[in-house]
Amino acid sequence: MTNINGLDSHGLTHAPNESTPREIYNGPVKSFLSNVSRFKLIETTLREGEQFANAFFDTAKKLDEFGVNYIELTTPVASPQSHKDCELICGLGLKAKILAHVRRHMDDVRAAVECGVDGINIMMGTSALLRQHSHGKDVAQIIKAAIEVIEYVQSQGLEVRFSTEDSFRSNLVDILSVYKTVDKIGVNRVGVADTIGCANPRQVYDLIQTLRGVVSCDIETHFHDDTGCATANAYTALEAGSTHIDVTVLGIGERNGITPLGGFMARMIVKYKLHMIKELEDMVAEAVQINTPFNNPITGFCAFTHKSGYHAKGVLSHPSNYEIINPEDFGMTRYVHFESRLTGWHTVKTRVIQLDLDMPDDQVRIVTEKIKTLADIRPLAIEDVDSIIRSSHAGQSQDQYLL
Amino acid sequence: MTNINGLDSHGLTHAPNESTPREIYNGPVKSFLSNVSRFKLIETTLREGEQFANAFFDTAKKLDEFGVNYIELTTPVASPQSHKDCELICGLGLKAKILAHVRRHMDDVRAAVECGVDGINIMMGTSALLRQHSHGKDVAQIIKAAIEVIEYVQSQGLEVRFSTEDSFRSNLVDILSVYKTVDKIGVNRVGVADTIGCANPRQVYDLIQTLRGVVSCDIETHFHDDTGCATANAYTALEAGSTHIDVTVLGIGERNGITPLGGFMARMIVKYKLHMIKELEDMVAEAVQINTPFNNPITGFCAFTHKSGYHAKGVLSHPSNYEIINPEDFGMTRYVHFESRLTGWHTVKTRVIQLDLDMPDDQVRIVTEKIKTLADIRPLAIEDVDSIIRSSHAGQSQDQYLL
Repeated sequence: MTNINGLDSHGLTHAPNESTPREIYNGPVKSFLSNVSRFKLIETTLREGEQFANAFFDTAKKLDEFGVNYIELTTPVASPQSHKDCELICGLGLKAKILAHVRRHMDDVRAAVECGVDGINIMMGTSALLRQHSHGKDVAQIIKAAIEVIEYVQSQGLEVRFSTEDSFRSNLVDILSVYKTVDKIGVNRVGVADTIGCANPRQVYDLIQTLRGVVSCDIETHFHDDTGCATANAYTALEAGSTHIDVTVLGIGERNGITPLGGFMARMIVKYKLHMIKELEDMVAEAVQINTPFNNPITGFCAFTHKSGYHAKGVLSHPSNYEIINPEDFGMTRYVHFESRLTGWHTVKTRVIQLDLDMPDDQVRIVTEKIKTLADIRPLAIEDVDSIIRSSHAGQSQDQYLL
Repeated sequence: MTNINGLDSHGLTHAPNESTPREIYNGPVKSFLSNVSRFKLIETTLREGEQFANAFFDTAKKLDEFGVNYIELTTPVASPQSHKDCELICGLGLKAKILAHVRRHMDDVRAAVECGVDGINIMMGTSALLRQHSHGKDVAQIIKAAIEVIEYVQSQGLEVRFSTEDSFRSNLVDILSVYKTVDKIGVNRVGVADTIGCANPRQVYDLIQTLRGVVSCDIETHFHDDTGCATANAYTALEAGSTHIDVTVLGIGERNGITPLGGFMARMIVKYKLHMIKELEDMVAEAVQINTPFNNPITGFCAFTHKSGYHAKGVLSHPSNYEIINPEDFGMTRYVHFESRLTGWHTVKTRVIQLDLDMPDDQVRIVTEKIKTLADIRPLAIEDVDSIIRSSHAGQSQDQYLL
């Protein structure tokens, strides 16, 4: 059985007696470059997210338990509280490595090192410099400025990442030149950031594939969601050879955010504690005072709800007919709507069986028509549907008795 | 100036005096196949959406005014009300063509024709048949079943689309064989549907590109969002040569829905009445009793909010530094957070200027520190920030007076 990634190794299983496995259309998407089965998660809710004070430590602990590989924090120089938070998180003894996301200034880097982080994510505002073709002049300037801080971090025995900004609007030759140089200096990762959320998947594949041939270090990617492509871009980056993906809970972040942890898990179905997604999202949503969107992957109230008669029938007979994700993998349950004018008789029949009633198909069809007629007039709750079924069944039994 | 699609012809303009145009990383994404600049929208909120009775006609009118090319409705045989709705919508005299989405049954098709629709979208539950390799037997069966209804619709002078279901898990040779035959019969469009939301962009590109070489008719695509790729997949399908994209307002639909109209517009920035997006979304959200997600493209309350000092400074000096989309194109406004411990002094300086106060940079830095310290203790409203600025300015003036 293959999963949505075209791999066999992860747990997208379903009812064991199911006759139609979840095979996929197998295009030529497997390649030696692909890291779809071996990526690492950099969780940046506490930095890119709302920088909320409320539930800060609980969120870090929960993310660690979930299994993220890195937790990224705001630079300790942002405020006195940021400095204290960073120190405290570093002292929690989490399995996840703690990263500070800092500007390319020695003061920022030193402050992060003092806090006890495991690594430094250096971000450099390169976009203005790299956006026009610079014939190497600005590139030299960027590299000169970067080298001091990179070497300092290395001397402290910590991981270091060097990221350009707005990478997809930067001049290709210039940006590759910067990445190649910092790779030679020995950074652990280079970072590609779609800071404004403009990239589309084919651009992502092309840039990451090219970069994969230029640097030997790991490649971290960071995608904003302004044009709705953040999850697809993260997945496509892995296909092209990136190794680390930045995510936040519910995708919270600047503007309409970045690749969401839950949405990305829906895409990947892998090794993390998936049943914790809902708990994590609820915690963060409360802390930043937002609601989980109705259409949120996995946990939105519509995610596993089937409404049309056609779909409802299909999903009740074989869930994989209309679901690529098994809700149980995430500790969620499936919900099939009966109370709609689109209800099909197969759905009603399923409900009849669930109610442990015996009813011939002809009568189920009659009951279905009653339900549809009533649903055109007013919204129906499941109790309404049940009482229509029960009263019809009682009538049927009575008819039998009278015969 | 190029826009996010790499095209020059559409209106992604910004402040005229801006020095840094919104150029993009230009990968090899332009191709003779691409329909990114010439697609048509099939709006299916009234079918794939919640099939809500409330605001049904107002939504249709508003969608027509917005400029969608097609409005798709539920099959008239779903319920007596569906039949009435279909007839009434057809009688409204809208510019958009009205389509009925029907099963491949003559009764369904005849009912739709009677209602006066402009075209029929035939959907056939092909997935079980096409999922295993069928050596042509099931394919012949599907084609035989389809041909009668297709020829009937053609005899009525109406448009006809033939769509398979779960296209990305179907056997490639079989599905191409079905599409090729219905193309020869003369359908206006074939439909590719990712019914379960499993496809990723590279699979989409590959299938649509292959299909483009097999059929000469138009290609409609329909993407569910279970794994967060619906918008990216729709865009990528256009790059590969598809011509029509299915969307709904806010993406509502089975489970967590399909490609959202607003999110897709954020990706495309094109010829539609973009300022109507919010009104449309508000209307549908009220009708189906949901809230617009906080992170919704364009209209979510975070979409144009800039929080970190770094971003806030950047966006105030040159909006395109941190925005790929101009909020004004959609009738929206930009919002920059001052009330956060991440506030940078450039942001505060901008506010000082907005308040028409005269304050030297050194003092702005002091005020910024005060704001940050207070923001660590409690959430700050814009009024708090203003009064810190004003009181500091008053003190400064007093100092000057005392000298």
